[in-house]
Amino acid sequence: MPTAAPLPPAALADLRSLLGDRVLTEPGALAAYGRDATPLFRHAPDVVVQPLTTEEVAGVLRIATKHRLPVTTRGAGTNLCAGTVPLSGGIVLSTTRMTALKEVSRDEMLAVCQPGVTAGALNRAAAVEGLVYVPDPGSKEASTVGGNVATCAGGLRGLKYGVTRQYVLGLEAVLPDGEVIRTGGRLVKDVAGYDLTRLLVGSEGTLAVITEITMALVPNPAAARYGVAYFTTMTDASEAVREIVASGPAPATLEFMDTVCIAAVEDFAHLGLRRDAGALLLFGDDGEPDAVDRSVARMAEVCAQRATHIELAESVAAAEDLLAARRCNLPALARSGSMTILEDVTVPRPKLAEMVAFVAETAEKHGVRIGTFGHAGDGNLHPTAVVDGDDRAAIDAATAAFDEIFRRAVDLGGTITGEHGVGAAKLPYLEHRLGPEQMALLRRIKSAFDPLGLLNPGKLGS
Amino acid sequence: MPTAAPLPPAALADLRSLLGDRVLTEPGALAAYGRDATPLFRHAPDVVVQPLTTEEVAGVLRIATKHRLPVTTRGAGTNLCAGTVPLSGGIVLSTTRMTALKEVSRDEMLAVCQPGVTAGALNRAAAVEGLVYVPDPGSKEASTVGGNVATCAGGLRGLKYGVTRQYVLGLEAVLPDGEVIRTGGRLVKDVAGYDLTRLLVGSEGTLAVITEITMALVPNPAAARYGVAYFTTMTDASEAVREIVASGPAPATLEFMDTVCIAAVEDFAHLGLRRDAGALLLFGDDGEPDAVDRSVARMAEVCAQRATHIELAESVAAAEDLLAARRCNLPALARSGSMTILEDVTVPRPKLAEMVAFVAETAEKHGVRIGTFGHAGDGNLHPTAVVDGDDRAAIDAATAAFDEIFRRAVDLGGTITGEHGVGAAKLPYLEHRLGPEQMALLRRIKSAFDPLGLLNPGKLGS
Repeated sequence: MPTAAPLPPAALADLRSLLGDRVLTEPGALAAYGRDATPLFRHAPDVVVQPLTTEEVAGVLRIATKHRLPVTTRGAGTNLCAGTVPLSGGIVLSTTRMTALKEVSRDEMLAVCQPGVTAGALNRAAAVEGLVYVPDPGSKEASTVGGNVATCAGGLRGLKYGVTRQYVLGLEAVLPDGEVIRTGGRLVKDVAGYDLTRLLVGSEGTLAVITEITMALVPNPAAARYGVAYFTTMTDASEAVREIVASGPAPATLEFMDTVCIAAVEDFAHLGLRRDAGALLLFGDDGEPDAVDRSVARMAEVCAQRATHIELAESVAAAEDLLAARRCNLPALARSGSMTILEDVTVPRPKLAEMVAFVAETAEKHGVRIGTFGHAGDGNLHPTAVVDGDDRAAIDAATAAFDEIFRRAVDLGGTITGEHGVGAAKLPYLEHRLGPEQMALLRRIKSAFDPLGLLNPGKLGS
Repeated sequence: MPTAAPLPPAALADLRSLLGDRVLTEPGALAAYGRDATPLFRHAPDVVVQPLTTEEVAGVLRIATKHRLPVTTRGAGTNLCAGTVPLSGGIVLSTTRMTALKEVSRDEMLAVCQPGVTAGALNRAAAVEGLVYVPDPGSKEASTVGGNVATCAGGLRGLKYGVTRQYVLGLEAVLPDGEVIRTGGRLVKDVAGYDLTRLLVGSEGTLAVITEITMALVPNPAAARYGVAYFTTMTDASEAVREIVASGPAPATLEFMDTVCIAAVEDFAHLGLRRDAGALLLFGDDGEPDAVDRSVARMAEVCAQRATHIELAESVAAAEDLLAARRCNLPALARSGSMTILEDVTVPRPKLAEMVAFVAETAEKHGVRIGTFGHAGDGNLHPTAVVDGDDRAAIDAATAAFDEIFRRAVDLGGTITGEHGVGAAKLPYLEHRLGPEQMALLRRIKSAFDPLGLLNPGKLGS
């Protein structure tokens, strides 16, 4: 990774000549851009730039190449893998002022936008046309479309609708030397060339800077319904998940919370959750009203074989309470300590209960409080540790617990990150997942895009 | 591209020592592997090898690297882009004896197989578990799963179900130096590393040799229904397509035939098609019976605003006739000449009628008979020329017509290949689609996998 040298005055002059007052060097601004939503990682950049156009991004990259400066691209900074912490200093390229929403087409079921548009803004613009932007990360009101693409964001709809990679039709991106490429386009069927669109999705700012996104949208479903089932054990809940998925079309929502999360959420939000349960499944579906009724009834029936209690939300308010219960795990858990470490592993669906049990045992062994919730249908878990951020021993204990958790996920046929990304936080575990040959191949691919290693050094491909 | 030098005796000895009698050098065998389903491209290899295992594939590649021999990987050879013609001679690596179907899991909704399993065989094995292998190329009884992955095959279900790339969960592949990598796995959510799975899908044997595929399957729909609508003009048909897609969930089937195809199919198969129509739409959907009825009724209603005649298939036999009409375009057209050139372009859906009209004008201008059919919902057209294969002037006229057709597709925001692949046939047009910067980037990515340029030279990345 390029070493952190002071910013040459000539580089700063070049940037100011290109962007005027959209070049920030005040210590307060640099400190703010020296961290993202990930605890424990922090490093201030030398300068923050706020381009508005593709041409300005290309100009910034040409200046960076000329002066050999690292460039860390950043949207809203909501990522949880330290993917946007500028570990080598240099330039933070903020996309938050690239907010042009150029097109929403009902006929072609797509949107074209700059990367700084927030997921929430795109969702609202799509809704006007009766359409939905599918990626549904927890951060959707704050996070940017560019960030969703850079991390291949998931969310609560993955089982039925897939994740971000499935909806990106085309990208405009700038290579480190300032060359602009356009990958894909407006087409679902297009096999002209290697799939650079998918290669850039999830590349976390290490290959190119994405400057325009063409994103497929889907019709807004006519109806949605939800229910909740309580189980004595996570094993029972997991068995219900297995049977739901194997017995019919994939439902939109199949989320779980373990006993730690149920108690924390009920203490926090007073939604009437059953605190004596060992696990909870939130199930739901969307689509045509009769199909939704049938799907939710089928899931309730499968759950009934093992659940201690089932409730269907019979009103919009009741459904909102259920969704609120699932969405407030993080603030509910966070109240019990000053630092929250929200993690992200995926295992094959049949291994879900085994993995949740392993997390609980490992937490106990290391004396760390970890609650686990997540996307049961996808086998995607978010074990979340809450610690005192001033207690180095507690942080070390959590780190040791997660180290074991990541390795076990891989050993069960799973992965170290399902939807949050690798960033700096997961890079030490990547070789355990991919093996040395594939790690070397990633580095060669990185070099094909970024031979000088200027883009987001210390992350994927480093 | 490596020059075609005679096969060194030492290389042949190495191959025989590894594979025994699964090394073919008879002139008849070499001639058979010197062409695929694409007209006009032909070049015999020096040797054909038939490995059975990943280890044997790795052995073949180590021998190829040692002796600097080109390696062209080939499944059933049904591709239509000359993707498996060994333009530089050397080794054809046939995967057709790698037919182990290792697993079909209802619980995890996936299959694991070697690349030589045919799409038809995987479909039948999936059906036993109530599941479907989604990719649906016209060649599905003959073509291999490895070939479907290598070309990112599409088919008749793209609009609702997407194409091959969406269903590949993980790959095992061998790099030219014999190193084995495993990308992805059994998980829908996995963002650990660059998306090498999707990079290998559609890479047409130019980056690595795929030796194992983990493929997502979907539940077999409970019902399917079809109908046909006739229109005076392709513009009317295209307008109906636009409105169907914009007014509700994507249906499974939305196919078109132009007036040339309608006449050819009716002459060939006597299915009672209305020969006086300017265009025909075959529409259909699958899923729960009531949802299917509703979807088909909606499509019929939209078509009724512009169609001259609509028929719904009220029996399985009637539905099979409709599907047969769509599927027999190629043999029906092929009867009128000794050489059929089946092409493949995609345009944005609103440009479908304009593109079909341009194909007809261009065919007339060059005095070539071209019928056009394809996947209306995807904007994916298959203009198909039928010529006398001994008439060089006729072949040149067809080539000139297609040259104009490919360029117009790109100029309309479309692409030179939607589902067939680039191979040798489309490589001359690729730069018009991607631009020089992206072409250079493809070559650098190719080098990251295959620094000696041994894998399928003269194709993608060359």
